[in-house]
Amino acid sequence: MAQVTLGLIGLGTVGTGVVRLLRENGDLIEKKTGIRFRLKRIADRGIREFREFALDGYELSESADAVLDDPEIEIAIELIGGYEPARTYLLQAIERGKHVVTANKALLARFGGEIFALADQVGVEVGFEGSVAGTVPIIRVLQDGLAANRIEKVAGIVNGTTNYILTKMTEEGLDYEPALAQATAAGFAEADPTLDVDGEDAAHKLAILATLAFGVRPEAKDIHVEGIRGLGQEDIRFARESGYVLKLLAIGRKTNGHVELRVHPALVPKTHPLASVRNEFNAVFVRGDASRETMYYGRGAGQMPTASAVLSDIIEIAERSLHDCRRPECRAAVRARKRSLYWSSDRFRPVDGIRSRYYLRFPIVDAPGAIGTLTTILGRHGVSIAAVHASIVDASANKGRIEILTHEALESAVKESCLEIGRTGILREKERLIRVEE
Amino acid sequence: MAQVTLGLIGLGTVGTGVVRLLRENGDLIEKKTGIRFRLKRIADRGIREFREFALDGYELSESADAVLDDPEIEIAIELIGGYEPARTYLLQAIERGKHVVTANKALLARFGGEIFALADQVGVEVGFEGSVAGTVPIIRVLQDGLAANRIEKVAGIVNGTTNYILTKMTEEGLDYEPALAQATAAGFAEADPTLDVDGEDAAHKLAILATLAFGVRPEAKDIHVEGIRGLGQEDIRFARESGYVLKLLAIGRKTNGHVELRVHPALVPKTHPLASVRNEFNAVFVRGDASRETMYYGRGAGQMPTASAVLSDIIEIAERSLHDCRRPECRAAVRARKRSLYWSSDRFRPVDGIRSRYYLRFPIVDAPGAIGTLTTILGRHGVSIAAVHASIVDASANKGRIEILTHEALESAVKESCLEIGRTGILREKERLIRVEE
Repeated sequence: MAQVTLGLIGLGTVGTGVVRLLRENGDLIEKKTGIRFRLKRIADRGIREFREFALDGYELSESADAVLDDPEIEIAIELIGGYEPARTYLLQAIERGKHVVTANKALLARFGGEIFALADQVGVEVGFEGSVAGTVPIIRVLQDGLAANRIEKVAGIVNGTTNYILTKMTEEGLDYEPALAQATAAGFAEADPTLDVDGEDAAHKLAILATLAFGVRPEAKDIHVEGIRGLGQEDIRFARESGYVLKLLAIGRKTNGHVELRVHPALVPKTHPLASVRNEFNAVFVRGDASRETMYYGRGAGQMPTASAVLSDIIEIAERSLHDCRRPECRAAVRARKRSLYWSSDRFRPVDGIRSRYYLRFPIVDAPGAIGTLTTILGRHGVSIAAVHASIVDASANKGRIEILTHEALESAVKESCLEIGRTGILREKERLIRVEE
Repeated sequence: MAQVTLGLIGLGTVGTGVVRLLRENGDLIEKKTGIRFRLKRIADRGIREFREFALDGYELSESADAVLDDPEIEIAIELIGGYEPARTYLLQAIERGKHVVTANKALLARFGGEIFALADQVGVEVGFEGSVAGTVPIIRVLQDGLAANRIEKVAGIVNGTTNYILTKMTEEGLDYEPALAQATAAGFAEADPTLDVDGEDAAHKLAILATLAFGVRPEAKDIHVEGIRGLGQEDIRFARESGYVLKLLAIGRKTNGHVELRVHPALVPKTHPLASVRNEFNAVFVRGDASRETMYYGRGAGQMPTASAVLSDIIEIAERSLHDCRRPECRAAVRARKRSLYWSSDRFRPVDGIRSRYYLRFPIVDAPGAIGTLTTILGRHGVSIAAVHASIVDASANKGRIEILTHEALESAVKESCLEIGRTGILREKERLIRVEE
């Protein structure tokens, strides 16, 4: 019987889930894989306060060094989150020849290059299936399942908090603030939800997806990010009336040798598979040149779903580590595959250069000729109109509203039109712009 | 540079797709994997009539022996379909030490045991990702992505023809026959659609899924199969009015140490992710004890989507075959994993023993007290009623209809109730029974 020895750093929610899963399903995993997984050491600063279940049979410590210094441990599992000391622990584990498994998307989005390069040099593996969309096996799908494809597009609902908020706004008619309060009460939003609602968490995950899908290495500046603050029932109403659902999407698309990466609210047609992804669920839609449209759906967070993803990494790395790679062809292939993480030399396309359909809502001072003024300006910038709808918001206060759905147009042309419309003085407030994702 | 040599048997639709994909994306695949895939030989009885593109650079033959006899070929790809001679070719390739890749679900459902046992004995791999749900990587998900889970349920839309027909019946109000004609015209149904519409094709795929999910080895008799013939607009109407969508599902479920396997039309709630799987698309919903609900969606058939799945097998097997497995621990693990394909000793539960909710429609002779008669009989068999609706179909002809939605009940109790109701003489025609899948 093959045995692989593990060490865990970080006994928080997900770490506890990994211990539980190894205890509860260890026999089953052994039956399926032929490998006995032995969790030898657990390190956590607060390990003395742990009360969920008895930790008999594990060597416990408050310091990560106990795991890092133990040569018997073949795979180190980092589940403390954040940049430091997680980064230092991962690098140290790799330096000492251990394979590592992590679910730390912020760390990989920012320091992935450094971590993968060191692992490549030392010859160990980095598992990170749990870092994007929890239990959804999107890392493996992009690396293996769709390996023969030229990936054209990824579009993901990769943040459960914002999807939960938008679902409540859509299905229960809540405004943003009460919907956020519900998400917090239900345990789907952090005490400080900034990273989620402003789209930064989704951008971290998009950076990882973009590397796997397009072979590029984006920095923060290469990703256009808009969050969901400020979305309201007027946006939800338009979506509903027009056959769309409002979602926060992380989109990566490759066109004409340029990769565009953006996180923003988007109108998704009701019949699109992403439209039915509700509440805290995540999903990633991927289109390859051969596979065509595919989608992967599941829980993006939570103790056991994320633990399931972490275990899938551990099992895969363990299976591979039992094999030898001594023949020169094997070493060449492994080196090539590792180096090839960033195989593309494509440039990034800034958001002003993208083409999309747009929903534009102009809150106007109700003046004769307003529709004409608006549509003329859009037309002059080459923005073609698919539908226009004018309505009176408050006749006594002279308030109106013009809503426009454009055909596909260049983003810079749309934005320039909006600036010019603003200068005419017919707007009461700034216009709303939401991209449509077909 | 590592190189792996391939031989293809069968240059039909999917075979042609594999050749195209290797030609068009070979450089990209090499960049991603570090492996050069060399397709050396193509065998097809009608190879002389092939006109789609020039086959320069391949050694062509009409006989499969050219592939089977060539010791340089490491992976043999079987894409001729059917039982024979596909089975013989696969077994011969394995005997000669070649890894094999196939998309032949009928063959695997019936002769999988024999094929896997021989491969295990010889020590080669069998790739079959393309055999279920085309491009959807469901084989790999069950084997690897969810490996740490106790799988509780799989529920798949795994037949594109029937899903296309049911979509047209639902969205365009067509009856069964014109919807089938449309599927044929659109190229989604075979000239003889029997295997599809009667559910046999879905049952083949369910047999494969059940082995991976539950470790069992079902025979045809262990799977309850109902097709979609005879479904009509009355069923579609009820589904629509009650918040359901009618789908042909392949369901595998494990409860109390028994595995139930069944293919039949089912009412799926509109908000369930399977409900949004339209037209020729496939999807498999999987619930694990840790992962909870997940779903995988994509094209279930078609030249390039299936070729994409076949290539994913080829790439994975090639990567593994470059590694050595000489250490005793490695050999033990591989042997255990291969043997463990059928690791469960669970029994199968016959369909009469399942518990489900049911939609029942009774076409009745409109007689006073009919509702009372019906509901009393159901109650006596322990079938509890969630909703009942009686309506007049044709007053002059004295025709009525009673529709009932039950709470969860034992299937045998429901069927016995229906038999007893039939004996009262109040039915004009046989009742309709459709299971509800929450």
